[in-house]
Amino acid sequence: MTAAFLANNLWVLLCGLFVFMMTMAVGLLEVGELGQRVVVSLVKTILITGLAVLVMAIVGFNTAFAPTLGGVIGDPRYGAGLFLGGFSPGLSDSWWSVTGGLRTGTYFLFETAFASVTLALVGVIALHKMKLSAFAIYSVVYFVLIWALPAAWIWNPSGWLAKLGMVDFAGGLVVHGAAGAAGLGIVWQIWREEKAKGLKVSPPVHYQVNPGWLTVAILLLWVGWFGFNPGSVLAFNDEAIIVVETTFVAAAAAMVSTSLTAYLVTSELFNPLYVVNGILMGLIVITPVAGFVSPGSALILGLLCGPIFVYAEKLVGRAKWLSDPVGLFPGHLVGGIFGVLMIAFFAQNQFATGSGFPGLPNGLFFGGGAAAVKQLGIEVLGIAAAVVAVFVLSHLTVRVLAALMRGITTNYGAADAVDATPGASATLA
Amino acid sequence: MTAAFLANNLWVLLCGLFVFMMTMAVGLLEVGELGQRVVVSLVKTILITGLAVLVMAIVGFNTAFAPTLGGVIGDPRYGAGLFLGGFSPGLSDSWWSVTGGLRTGTYFLFETAFASVTLALVGVIALHKMKLSAFAIYSVVYFVLIWALPAAWIWNPSGWLAKLGMVDFAGGLVVHGAAGAAGLGIVWQIWREEKAKGLKVSPPVHYQVNPGWLTVAILLLWVGWFGFNPGSVLAFNDEAIIVVETTFVAAAAAMVSTSLTAYLVTSELFNPLYVVNGILMGLIVITPVAGFVSPGSALILGLLCGPIFVYAEKLVGRAKWLSDPVGLFPGHLVGGIFGVLMIAFFAQNQFATGSGFPGLPNGLFFGGGAAAVKQLGIEVLGIAAAVVAVFVLSHLTVRVLAALMRGITTNYGAADAVDATPGASATLA
Amino acid sequence: MTAAFLANNLWVLLCGLFVFMMTMAVGLLEVGELGQRVVVSLVKTILITGLAVLVMAIVGFNTAFAPTLGGVIGDPRYGAGLFLGGFSPGLSDSWWSVTGGLRTGTYFLFETAFASVTLALVGVIALHKMKLSAFAIYSVVYFVLIWALPAAWIWNPSGWLAKLGMVDFAGGLVVHGAAGAAGLGIVWQIWREEKAKGLKVSPPVHYQVNPGWLTVAILLLWVGWFGFNPGSVLAFNDEAIIVVETTFVAAAAAMVSTSLTAYLVTSELFNPLYVVNGILMGLIVITPVAGFVSPGSALILGLLCGPIFVYAEKLVGRAKWLSDPVGLFPGHLVGGIFGVLMIAFFAQNQFATGSGFPGLPNGLFFGGGAAAVKQLGIEVLGIAAAVVAVFVLSHLTVRVLAALMRGITTNYGAADAVDATPGASATLA
Repeated sequence: MTAAFLANNLWVLLCGLFVFMMTMAVGLLEVGELGQRVVVSLVKTILITGLAVLVMAIVGFNTAFAPTLGGVIGDPRYGAGLFLGGFSPGLSDSWWSVTGGLRTGTYFLFETAFASVTLALVGVIALHKMKLSAFAIYSVVYFVLIWALPAAWIWNPSGWLAKLGMVDFAGGLVVHGAAGAAGLGIVWQIWREEKAKGLKVSPPVHYQVNPGWLTVAILLLWVGWFGFNPGSVLAFNDEAIIVVETTFVAAAAAMVSTSLTAYLVTSELFNPLYVVNGILMGLIVITPVAGFVSPGSALILGLLCGPIFVYAEKLVGRAKWLSDPVGLFPGHLVGGIFGVLMIAFFAQNQFATGSGFPGLPNGLFFGGGAAAVKQLGIEVLGIAAAVVAVFVLSHLTVRVLAALMRGITTNYGAADAVDATPGASATLA
Repeated sequence: MTAAFLANNLWVLLCGLFVFMMTMAVGLLEVGELGQRVVVSLVKTILITGLAVLVMAIVGFNTAFAPTLGGVIGDPRYGAGLFLGGFSPGLSDSWWSVTGGLRTGTYFLFETAFASVTLALVGVIALHKMKLSAFAIYSVVYFVLIWALPAAWIWNPSGWLAKLGMVDFAGGLVVHGAAGAAGLGIVWQIWREEKAKGLKVSPPVHYQVNPGWLTVAILLLWVGWFGFNPGSVLAFNDEAIIVVETTFVAAAAAMVSTSLTAYLVTSELFNPLYVVNGILMGLIVITPVAGFVSPGSALILGLLCGPIFVYAEKLVGRAKWLSDPVGLFPGHLVGGIFGVLMIAFFAQNQFATGSGFPGLPNGLFFGGGAAAVKQLGIEVLGIAAAVVAVFVLSHLTVRVLAALMRGITTNYGAADAVDATPGASATLA
Repeated sequence: MTAAFLANNLWVLLCGLFVFMMTMAVGLLEVGELGQRVVVSLVKTILITGLAVLVMAIVGFNTAFAPTLGGVIGDPRYGAGLFLGGFSPGLSDSWWSVTGGLRTGTYFLFETAFASVTLALVGVIALHKMKLSAFAIYSVVYFVLIWALPAAWIWNPSGWLAKLGMVDFAGGLVVHGAAGAAGLGIVWQIWREEKAKGLKVSPPVHYQVNPGWLTVAILLLWVGWFGFNPGSVLAFNDEAIIVVETTFVAAAAAMVSTSLTAYLVTSELFNPLYVVNGILMGLIVITPVAGFVSPGSALILGLLCGPIFVYAEKLVGRAKWLSDPVGLFPGHLVGGIFGVLMIAFFAQNQFATGSGFPGLPNGLFFGGGAAAVKQLGIEVLGIAAAVVAVFVLSHLTVRVLAALMRGITTNYGAADAVDATPGASATLA
């Protein structure tokens, strides 16, 4: 390998490893925010990690990234991806090795880690309400089909949205938006079963902050995002280093912005949940644009996160038919989609070129004009297509599972009503 | 340094760092499986980490990796390794710098981390039964002699088994099998002292799962194995990336296989202990072959892990004279040796060439024929020699310590009998 | 980028990421040593992490590292550092890119992580006594001015001390000594307020060891130091690898030396606090010299740590007007300054050349003679200047804050007097 190819593989492989850690970090985040009650989250995220590797190695990597069948789904029989090449000792001459010299193992680990953490995000809506066995079966369908479709459409260069010019740098839609849509498909079924049990309100799962696990979780997630965004350049070059700047600055600005917004609303300063959710919101919002914008723009985007998150959380909190304490909808769904839309406003072609998107026009704030408006239209189309497809497929999957398994929910109603009452405070003593 | 030399050192150094984390991760695994009772495991693994660095830096690195005296043990006076070169500012012209350009610090950190984690595995059999002071003194002997011998024989190119053609990619025998043999030497002495106290059965240490620590442990161990196996190519090349694939796929397949096997036996699905032990078993079994086999073979080897682990655990569980809740014998001893034997069945010369073993013949399943049978014989010889030598040396060491310290065991009998009774469930609530 | 530039950026960026983890690791260390009482430390260290990134990105990176105004402080308006270049897509032709090709993002992340962890060390003296809001405001002043000054003087090549020939490899003074001086400025104000409340003795915060968090903390800190010292070569070359050796060997030797010294004093062997503090003391002492000395010298320096730490801790423990259970003064202040002084004794020019300091003379133990004595004078001057400046600025800052916020302390007196009484043992059960 040449020096650049060595550096690219080393970089993306290590970034993949950091992202790989994020799945279990989401489990620790759930326990850190909701307490021992959701300890099943830990087994869930370990299982997701393993199932992601196995299912993606067999065929999921292909359905997402092999040359597509008509722009819709990757060819499951593509040699380099099917069983990762099976028993073949020859290095396949796969398309992903052409530009930056990424080897199959490099690209596989990186993208599998993405698929894995996306499902972990979906899973925060399962809480302790969904049967672990149902979730495990759902996982298989998820990796082969539900995760693969947006990836095949947008990140796979032969996908139909990619060909239209849609971009989504590190997954504002493919990861965060899609996780929200998939979660919506699940939580709707949970609510259907809750209604059938006679419940008028979906039993809320309250906060029980465990600061130790919360800290480990945000540390691992921030480190993971170092892989998530800078690694998404899929090469180690000047732009990859700039993405470190945009990612970290957005997170830091959003931490401050969210803490202060929450202070204005609740009069409580530095509630650990808002500090942590602020960081996450900043990381989410910058994700789809991190490789297209300047550090200055990242700072602005981070500052916008506070009001958006706090308001969106309030809105979601009004819904009686779901409990979303970890913030899948106000954080990942709203934040991810907002970030994708910002491409049409904040992108600068010179940054995007370094990320491998020399065709992306400047955003409206940088003189993009008509080209930027057109880009906005493409992004909106992509968002609509992906959100609808993922929601429908996710909901259909749990409907089928519910039919086969006599419901996907566990018996949590009574116990939960009890433990929801005392000490359910989000505040540190 | 050339681009390749830079990449090799960067890769092996970082892999060494990931392996370095595994020693304390084993302490967290013990607490994650057995609860606060074995909290001394944490101090133990911190001590092991420090002692490994110190003792290996003084002379242990030499006894393992310096040019051997007659193929048996590394020359302790070798300049580049003795006190890591002492005060000499010149870069020693050591043998390990020749092929891939590995610097002394790179190779030292990597191998020291291996020695360290091997002793951490031995230590899981100590539980809270062995005096920490005895274990600390044992550590010194271990790094200078007990760990060094199999390494000098098999990994040191001038070792007698290496010259015979024995291979063990990342330590199925040098790490896992040898850890089992050394642990057997210790646990036998523990049992001798327990018998002398009049006990008929070795007081078992039951499970008390702490899911948080268990999760952190398996996360760190999996990340560590990313260093363990892919780093063992001792270079950053195409094969190193393939080893990421074989390692991760085997772990994932074994997780599923072990969970399902356990379900057939216990009717309990996704017991966190079996999920975690499945991952570990897959990682152990693939270790000695990871650089010689295809991803397809890794998948098969992973699937074999479930039945092997569950059956071996049952077998070991029948022994009344030892308590092995963390699975040193069914996991590391059985899994490590099984993996080494599989070299003669699954190896493919084209993969092995990338790992630096162009002389390794194809396995029996890939047309290796007589050469593969001969390889099997060599591997069996090596296993027998290393297991016997390590067991004898380990047992002699603790016998001497017992004589000097009036026994190596603490007073745990009564307390343990009490806390073994209630709530000793392996299941998450 | 050339192969060397790629390797340098990859190395320093990853090292920066490891250092980035250390800030929250300090929070976990506080909880690991002092228990749930100081759980606010976790929010504090998350806030520090975010504020460091934000404030340094806006202007703090400039005040420390931009070409200085008269050798005193970096020019805040320097284009490449102000808002990290703002909206400019062009790669600035900044001075730090000249020698090793470090990009702005690389150097920014690395140094910001240093600033962040330095404040985390200052913060261990805040315990649960200082208002979090006061500490957050203090942080802003800290990153712009208090941290920046010693960095601008010593690490910035245009600083007045750097021009005099002062060296401090990875921050014995810039990080550890300065953290001690800044902490002294805070704790004096805490004592002033305690006296005003009528207290005769500063309420001590006793140990309540939580071995799990303590283990995670020391693991992350040791891994972080892999970035801290070896990364401080600011290039990936032979010397960077030697720094791995000196750093790890010093830590290991100090662990043994401190454990045994504590045993002589307290008759208790392997108290986890002394094991962990020994590792930290070794890491601190080697920090300012790691890139200038041999592995043999590192071993000697590590062995010296035990008596120094145990004696210094005893001395500090006598002061009735402060509580310093995590060891800011005996560890970071004393250890950091001691290490800086050792430059004049143990340095070897051939190692220092690899670190980028070809002008550093050999130390007294290596024939440095008059040049070494002169170097000692320069180091003493630098220590005095930095300690005084940081102490004064830190104290003035909290005095102003106290005036504005009616004191910087919380109401902890009574509660603390209670929880100080029972079970405040540092020993594992």
